[in-house]
Amino acid sequence: MEESHMLKEMLKNVRKTAPLVHNITNYVTVNDCANILLACGGSPIMADDVEEAAEITTICGGLNINIGTLNARTIPAMHAAGKRANELGHPVVLDPVGAGASALRTRTANELIRDVKFTVIRGNVSEIKTLALGVGNTRGVDADMADGVTKDTLEQAVAFAKEFARKTGAVVAITGAIDIVADDKKAYCIFNGHPMMSRITGTGCQLSALTAAYAAANPDAPLQAAAAAVCAMGICGEMAYHRLSEADGNATYRNYIIDAMYHLDGEELERLARYEIH
Amino acid sequence: MEESHMLKEMLKNVRKTAPLVHNITNYVTVNDCANILLACGGSPIMADDVEEAAEITTICGGLNINIGTLNARTIPAMHAAGKRANELGHPVVLDPVGAGASALRTRTANELIRDVKFTVIRGNVSEIKTLALGVGNTRGVDADMADGVTKDTLEQAVAFAKEFARKTGAVVAITGAIDIVADDKKAYCIFNGHPMMSRITGTGCQLSALTAAYAAANPDAPLQAAAAAVCAMGICGEMAYHRLSEADGNATYRNYIIDAMYHLDGEELERLARYEIH
Amino acid sequence: MEESHMLKEMLKNVRKTAPLVHNITNYVTVNDCANILLACGGSPIMADDVEEAAEITTICGGLNINIGTLNARTIPAMHAAGKRANELGHPVVLDPVGAGASALRTRTANELIRDVKFTVIRGNVSEIKTLALGVGNTRGVDADMADGVTKDTLEQAVAFAKEFARKTGAVVAITGAIDIVADDKKAYCIFNGHPMMSRITGTGCQLSALTAAYAAANPDAPLQAAAAAVCAMGICGEMAYHRLSEADGNATYRNYIIDAMYHLDGEELERLARYEIH
Repeated sequence: MEESHMLKEMLKNVRKTAPLVHNITNYVTVNDCANILLACGGSPIMADDVEEAAEITTICGGLNINIGTLNARTIPAMHAAGKRANELGHPVVLDPVGAGASALRTRTANELIRDVKFTVIRGNVSEIKTLALGVGNTRGVDADMADGVTKDTLEQAVAFAKEFARKTGAVVAITGAIDIVADDKKAYCIFNGHPMMSRITGTGCQLSALTAAYAAANPDAPLQAAAAAVCAMGICGEMAYHRLSEADGNATYRNYIIDAMYHLDGEELERLARYEIH
Repeated sequence: MEESHMLKEMLKNVRKTAPLVHNITNYVTVNDCANILLACGGSPIMADDVEEAAEITTICGGLNINIGTLNARTIPAMHAAGKRANELGHPVVLDPVGAGASALRTRTANELIRDVKFTVIRGNVSEIKTLALGVGNTRGVDADMADGVTKDTLEQAVAFAKEFARKTGAVVAITGAIDIVADDKKAYCIFNGHPMMSRITGTGCQLSALTAAYAAANPDAPLQAAAAAVCAMGICGEMAYHRLSEADGNATYRNYIIDAMYHLDGEELERLARYEIH
Repeated sequence: MEESHMLKEMLKNVRKTAPLVHNITNYVTVNDCANILLACGGSPIMADDVEEAAEITTICGGLNINIGTLNARTIPAMHAAGKRANELGHPVVLDPVGAGASALRTRTANELIRDVKFTVIRGNVSEIKTLALGVGNTRGVDADMADGVTKDTLEQAVAFAKEFARKTGAVVAITGAIDIVADDKKAYCIFNGHPMMSRITGTGCQLSALTAAYAAANPDAPLQAAAAAVCAMGICGEMAYHRLSEADGNATYRNYIIDAMYHLDGEELERLARYEIH
């Protein structure tokens, strides 16, 4: 694929194929996940009971597993849907929300990674570090990265992301002030986004849902699909910020980000994306 | 009831009686269901544990059962609440979200229809066809209706809706580009609404909640109540669309629909409703 | 603490310490609870499975237990988290949503009060009366208070709140047209807010989450912290109301309240708060 038109191509395929994405996700941000999927041109379906999870996955093009507000009832549904998606060759995204915050979340994320082949694993640096510790050693990861990836720790973080990608076979997306999207050979370091995005609940969850739509619409290019989704989310965060009036706060900002995704086109995505390849 | 003032009367009774509606519904769109109920002049209560479901129904005026994100824990609560509502003569609405998409949803919807007498069953054409197959033959339903009701398939769809209404004893609301609201003898074919409503999650769920409020406030006229609710939702979709600025997308549209319901009055409802009786 | 700068001090401490609040709460208003916590300067985490509830509480600064949409699975998590928070000396808020509406809710709220020492109990007059009946006699409470606290019943309500505070050891916040925030000796009677707040789902839930953030940031002044949170919420309801255009309804109002909380500063809080000490 020619690098210069890659992002536009990824977005175009989402709008063209309108992928149906199965989400097993937390009840905090689920409505925003559904609306961002509709905004980008995809379609959402939510189903978390083990009795129907695999069947619902079958009729979809992609699966998004998010472990926020996980519980004893929904964890088996995540495994059942993940396995079925693997059998069918559907892209599967893992959002390990809060991995490291409780033993249940860390164990569940690690067991999912053991049993399901993920196409993309997306989390913040703390969550991804927790998972990397769970599946092997963590050379190159140190306390400097504790608070996210900065310019000073970028090379170190890129190496860490590539190594975790190599171990899991997944594209790894570490998001924060700088986002890294990597497979074992290549990394996109993405500079889009706005700090105010962290003042809304669920921008990470929304990005994971969006990534599932992009991966479903671009099954042969998971790295590029994930990078395009991360750029798109960051750009929408920027565009929404510029729309805010003085009295607007995080609630209006939340709406404007989804609104921006609704209108985002491939030309804008290409023009506004800011990334380096490492 | 004089046809010319029917819609206004239905709305007026909602605002006058402020019905409390018990919702057993999915966690994706539940907040929007609560806010549309408040917008229309009703009041929501959500309770889905079998230990309290029947008791909560007792203190309400109507019940709305929506099977999106159903699970083994909530299905018994749907039956318990539905039976109690029947004993008390409260209107009960069924929204068979995703019937046909999984065996669990299809079976649950059919078992609910077997065990609970519904006042209104509201779904899209695919969901209602699935249910009709479950309770009897499906003459008159063919592939032409697969993608919703159009002018060409309207008469066929009306006959189908009346037949399903006859079998279930419920008012049947099939919503899409054209909406049909029918009992066994009479059908309202409603032309309100806007295509962008399908780009928000939950306009169908909201309509079912709204219908429960209208049915609760108009216990002797379930057909007219359901038709008024469908007109009201469609009109709010139109009004909200006309408020959108260039940068607004589906998130702002979601808010504006609820805002429009907050202000909708009987005169507007009468003036803007577009329907035929078949 | 000097009374004249108290509110400003409470707010400043929230912004300075950015308390992480663990919420075990209903799925109807959970997203709004998360966004109001981010708006005020805190941070939310939601976790309701008994296997992780106590552990999640451990990493937080405060706990908010809200019994809306409670169920057999989440009730043990409320107890486990509440006990752990008590062991750690973290502030704990109880929002007894719907106490009195079902035996399950009334019993659960009373058992929580028996087993967990709450820092603040916040509800409407009907919910708090139900709880007071559950834990002892209810002298001073009569039918005059059925529909909320008014100027005529204010003294009676203050005495009732102080008595319930004495029995439970908690600060008691009874919210409605007039809000009362009391310990056993002192009560703040707060006149902020707007009637339209009752036309949105979840302003009470949001206030409870906010109160947990204020209590976590001001561990030595739970009465003042709760009073400041109640003033802040009421003021944001007023400010948001004044931003509404003619076409805006309850959905936009919901967003504007959270937006107002995002911008609220200590000077405004001091200037706009309207309360008496009884």
